[in-house]
Amino acid sequence: MTSATLAALSNQQYRLAARPMGLPKDSDWSFSSEALRDIVEGEIIVQAIYLSLDPAMRGWMNEGKSYIRPVAINEVMRAGGIGKVIASKSAKFAVGDYVSGGIGVQKFWLGAADDKSASFYKVDPKLAPLPKYLNALGMPGMTAYFGLLDVGLPKAGETVVVSGAAGAVGQTVGQVARQKGCRVVGIAGGKEKCDFVVNELGFDACIDYKTGSVKDGLKEHCPNGVDIYFDNVGGEILDTVLTRINMKARIIICGAISQYNNTTPVKGPANYLSLLVNRARMEGIVVFDYLPRYAEATKEMGAWMAQGKFQTREDIVQGIENFPAALLMLFEGKNFGKLILQVGQE
Amino acid sequence: MTSATLAALSNQQYRLAARPMGLPKDSDWSFSSEALRDIVEGEIIVQAIYLSLDPAMRGWMNEGKSYIRPVAINEVMRAGGIGKVIASKSAKFAVGDYVSGGIGVQKFWLGAADDKSASFYKVDPKLAPLPKYLNALGMPGMTAYFGLLDVGLPKAGETVVVSGAAGAVGQTVGQVARQKGCRVVGIAGGKEKCDFVVNELGFDACIDYKTGSVKDGLKEHCPNGVDIYFDNVGGEILDTVLTRINMKARIIICGAISQYNNTTPVKGPANYLSLLVNRARMEGIVVFDYLPRYAEATKEMGAWMAQGKFQTREDIVQGIENFPAALLMLFEGKNFGKLILQVGQE
Repeated sequence: MTSATLAALSNQQYRLAARPMGLPKDSDWSFSSEALRDIVEGEIIVQAIYLSLDPAMRGWMNEGKSYIRPVAINEVMRAGGIGKVIASKSAKFAVGDYVSGGIGVQKFWLGAADDKSASFYKVDPKLAPLPKYLNALGMPGMTAYFGLLDVGLPKAGETVVVSGAAGAVGQTVGQVARQKGCRVVGIAGGKEKCDFVVNELGFDACIDYKTGSVKDGLKEHCPNGVDIYFDNVGGEILDTVLTRINMKARIIICGAISQYNNTTPVKGPANYLSLLVNRARMEGIVVFDYLPRYAEATKEMGAWMAQGKFQTREDIVQGIENFPAALLMLFEGKNFGKLILQVGQE
Repeated sequence: MTSATLAALSNQQYRLAARPMGLPKDSDWSFSSEALRDIVEGEIIVQAIYLSLDPAMRGWMNEGKSYIRPVAINEVMRAGGIGKVIASKSAKFAVGDYVSGGIGVQKFWLGAADDKSASFYKVDPKLAPLPKYLNALGMPGMTAYFGLLDVGLPKAGETVVVSGAAGAVGQTVGQVARQKGCRVVGIAGGKEKCDFVVNELGFDACIDYKTGSVKDGLKEHCPNGVDIYFDNVGGEILDTVLTRINMKARIIICGAISQYNNTTPVKGPANYLSLLVNRARMEGIVVFDYLPRYAEATKEMGAWMAQGKFQTREDIVQGIENFPAALLMLFEGKNFGKLILQVGQE
């Protein structure tokens, strides 16, 4: 591409304007547009197609020590995504390659092909539709797969409960657990989501936390107690599950979406002493630790997909201009499946 | 012993009269006195000498599912203890034997020698003074030993923090960790206790939570963060330690003395998401699981004691009539060392 062509491409970007208190407001974002510069040796330009919208993004907007540095004020908001290489001066990627990596909430990513924070790698649109690489074959899927198997250590016949069951991570947790011979009970908001995970994904049961009591649901659907709880939500649901765990139960702390927009302190699990009574374990997982093993998970889940035994659902919102509103869908439970923002054409 | 001799022995007992709200009050106990009956084949009578007073006793007074059934209303209060066999129609124990087991808060225990809930076993007063069998060589010591080693998995050079450091469990946790090559930092209430664990027990440092900031103390004394936290107290101290843990840290949940007398719900650890950020683990321990391995711990700690490398301190209160007041010392942090009630002579 010539300099003139590049300069003509308007790179629209969402930047963090202010650290939110509670739910992110429109004024916490600034929308900018800039021309692309020429690339130098070793660099590439990736045109964003699909951006992954995840609950974890809310945490990245806060100051303070975490598993990853906070997004700086005025920095382009961090987001994983799938894009197409449209310019390359690197042997690593060719024009036309599809890649997955840390694109950010913008239309184009420009930088060194081996940039560590972007960590681009090729994906193959012939093996699976591109959005799947942000779902089961992407970060949420890897989180689910390694969190369940490596931290949860499920055994056939055990009962696995997962919250956010219709969400990106929950869908995969439940299906992997089913493949491993476990009884799987989801917790999700609304009849439509519950029907989906039972009828489409094959969960044994699903508890609708919006219309019923989670405690009663656990009593009914987990008659032998809970051996593994994969927690995506925290708050009261975590506390309720803690009252139903079995001896030597494992609780995987993957997220706490109910607490991310608190303006008061996080609600700690008041029933944590159930860990003592039951000699149980609560352990955190961060997916980046498993980067060297992603291929292992992709291979196993990919094979299940090919055999028609494993499916996932995406909820794709169109247009970069809808980023602020789309992100809020996560915290209101409005997305149905892995939430993705499409900002460019395949 | 003749029936007449037995009947002349007045068995004084503390029974649970009511389930306490908050700290146990005098009216939550009833004091009774009854004559001993003759024993039949297979039975023994144990004269109580030392009774173990432990924070866990508060939990046994509550209704509800736990790792052990609650003490029933009007039942003799459960307590471990050391006593002497004064009558036996069992081949298992001879008159004159010293035994450890579930004597209860009473002057005499009468029942089958192989009673499961009492679980008597012989102790040897020549190997160690009898009170040690309620401390490092008893339940608190076993809790400390297996909790630290089996759940905490300490490696030489790691930093171990223990709360209730001058208490029965804390003393042993710290000394076992030192023997395993760890840096050990205690948390205790008051200068006298802190001086004791540093100067007498060889801890590297001790933070006085009554006069200083635990957060500042951790910053100062754990410059490389906290790899293992052995928690006996829960509440704010647990929350503070959670802000200082290292990657892959292990938190052993042994107790939560700060929460046992709450009349409001237990305060859950608001900073539990530090487990996620640090891929850390919080796990409960109940000492009874390790019963088959007590000998292993007794052997190793006994050897350290014999070599003068390991010591423990007891705080012995005299007289069964002082049971209600003595128990409260635990919750006010007034005991200095393992709290024991002496109710009979050796």
